[in-house]
Amino acid sequence: MPSVTAEIVIAVDAMGGDQAPDMVVRGVSLARKRFPEVRYLLFGDEARLEPLVKGMPEVAEVSEIRHASDAVSAEAKPSQVVRTGRKSSLWLATEAVKRGEAAGVVSAGNTGAFMAVAKIILRTLPGIDRPAIATLLPTQRGESVVLDLGANAECNANNLVEFAIMGEVFARTVLALERPTVGIMNVGSEAGKGTDSVRGAATVLGDSTLPIHFHGFVEGDDLAKGTVDVIVTDGFTGNVMLKTAEGTAKLYSQFLRNAFGSSLLSKMGYLLARPALNKVRTRTDPRRYNGAMFLGLNGVAVKSHGGTDELGFANALGVAVDLVREGFNESIKGEFEKVQVPQVPASV
Amino acid sequence: MPSVTAEIVIAVDAMGGDQAPDMVVRGVSLARKRFPEVRYLLFGDEARLEPLVKGMPEVAEVSEIRHASDAVSAEAKPSQVVRTGRKSSLWLATEAVKRGEAAGVVSAGNTGAFMAVAKIILRTLPGIDRPAIATLLPTQRGESVVLDLGANAECNANNLVEFAIMGEVFARTVLALERPTVGIMNVGSEAGKGTDSVRGAATVLGDSTLPIHFHGFVEGDDLAKGTVDVIVTDGFTGNVMLKTAEGTAKLYSQFLRNAFGSSLLSKMGYLLARPALNKVRTRTDPRRYNGAMFLGLNGVAVKSHGGTDELGFANALGVAVDLVREGFNESIKGEFEKVQVPQVPASV
Repeated sequence: MPSVTAEIVIAVDAMGGDQAPDMVVRGVSLARKRFPEVRYLLFGDEARLEPLVKGMPEVAEVSEIRHASDAVSAEAKPSQVVRTGRKSSLWLATEAVKRGEAAGVVSAGNTGAFMAVAKIILRTLPGIDRPAIATLLPTQRGESVVLDLGANAECNANNLVEFAIMGEVFARTVLALERPTVGIMNVGSEAGKGTDSVRGAATVLGDSTLPIHFHGFVEGDDLAKGTVDVIVTDGFTGNVMLKTAEGTAKLYSQFLRNAFGSSLLSKMGYLLARPALNKVRTRTDPRRYNGAMFLGLNGVAVKSHGGTDELGFANALGVAVDLVREGFNESIKGEFEKVQVPQVPASV
Repeated sequence: MPSVTAEIVIAVDAMGGDQAPDMVVRGVSLARKRFPEVRYLLFGDEARLEPLVKGMPEVAEVSEIRHASDAVSAEAKPSQVVRTGRKSSLWLATEAVKRGEAAGVVSAGNTGAFMAVAKIILRTLPGIDRPAIATLLPTQRGESVVLDLGANAECNANNLVEFAIMGEVFARTVLALERPTVGIMNVGSEAGKGTDSVRGAATVLGDSTLPIHFHGFVEGDDLAKGTVDVIVTDGFTGNVMLKTAEGTAKLYSQFLRNAFGSSLLSKMGYLLARPALNKVRTRTDPRRYNGAMFLGLNGVAVKSHGGTDELGFANALGVAVDLVREGFNESIKGEFEKVQVPQVPASV
């Protein structure tokens, strides 16, 4: 196996995910075609990884196996992993970023454990109190970035302001939008609506001299409309929102499947419209949007959905490559050094 | 116009809603066919209502116009309506329930004002601290009731327990389910997840001797799956969840419309499958689910979507009729008298 010398190196937790490690290695194979300049460090059980990698020469060419004697289960408590998981593939892969051997880490394993380990090993960027989980979602206009998706169940106004800055920098650097719009999720668009946290954050973002194009409050249906480029919310609401959107899309496509199957005519109709309908399927394929980013850490960390397949995992690897390539963390650091983030009094 | 003597009388805010009063009167006309035994008190501007009602003899036969010199605008602040809105159609219609002239009130007007006025005039039922807004939503299994949808942006554990009891009684009486299942919305199904409020409420519902079939925590995608019959959440999350689901459904149908229109073949496919697709449209038609219930008040109050048409408004009237017919409020009162609702300490 050649030594890892190329420009971008990604550390991979090869043992995370329902179908790991097979799915992970197949994902690397797919990613290899898309990002020929990227190299991978595969952390996991050598005895299981070696034969897999040997069977895929295109993976062997760009990867190096690093043995990890332990793996974090999907059910493990984050606090326990932090105490006893130092020999796990998740821990060692994340540590590779800290040591500078890799520019980013990707795992399809236990989300809570990954966030806890990443916070301890990578630490938050200067000026940032709490990291957030962000993702892209399809909208009528294109796609929007949404954060937080569950790293912080409860957020105060200052947390939301930080998320807004991070989301804006992401949209500017990685999505290459010139002046992305930012909205705060609320139960109505009027100024007096919602909790103290969202009102406090809106006051700061609206009044301050931060270089942010603040749109104001948005509501649940603004996600699909694509009203703003960045949607800011607490991790509880964001998590429920994301899963509600996924569930509704599935429900709708299930209703459609039933409808198309309900008569001979509708079956024929389906056959005629199939090429066009397949485009919709591709457009809304959750695997396309796989790869949630942990923003605000001293290193790139991307969480793949645990139940995804190799296509989804390759997308998650692509998200990590994008963040590294576009220098997202350097931009964030620059932003927080440049601006004085106004603080909302603790009572708000 | 005959006097109102029939079994069920519904007070209608004829001035609430984007297309009021025309849409409201047409809605009564539709409802009349479905509920021949119901009579209506139409509160609003007599000069506008009289010609409308005269033009629809089927409405005139079952309605009585009650003049209101004022109407609440969609933008009015609830606190202001409470102080100065006593001559409004919304206020007078709600008062008709308090005075026993009507068994329920329906408005398509300003939600916040309606809730504020209803709380002041009708008051909460004994044992209930905060009323909640509830609605039915389509699922893969049928439909589920969700509450709260925005009456209370922040909720403690005790509020959530009350919502669970009210939702369960609703599912039992109005949906006629024998042993409805109840779940609390959270960011994961494991016991330690989420905020103090959801954890506290889950402890009470799980440990107590309340006659509730408590399923535990549910997640956003459980809404569409129909995992439980009753989903309990705070008003902030519930509101975002509801609007996210609506927005996603619209996005999906927009993608489909584009797909069907994209080629001659897919247009033909659409024509063949149209009858089946129309069933999906009917099944997911938001007008079918129009009519959000204010639960926990001393009287039936139903909020129609402001932008709905007569079909949606007739459905909202139907929701009020159902609540009255099934004796929902009597059941709720009975439930709260029967059981000692365990209280979570204030710190939780």
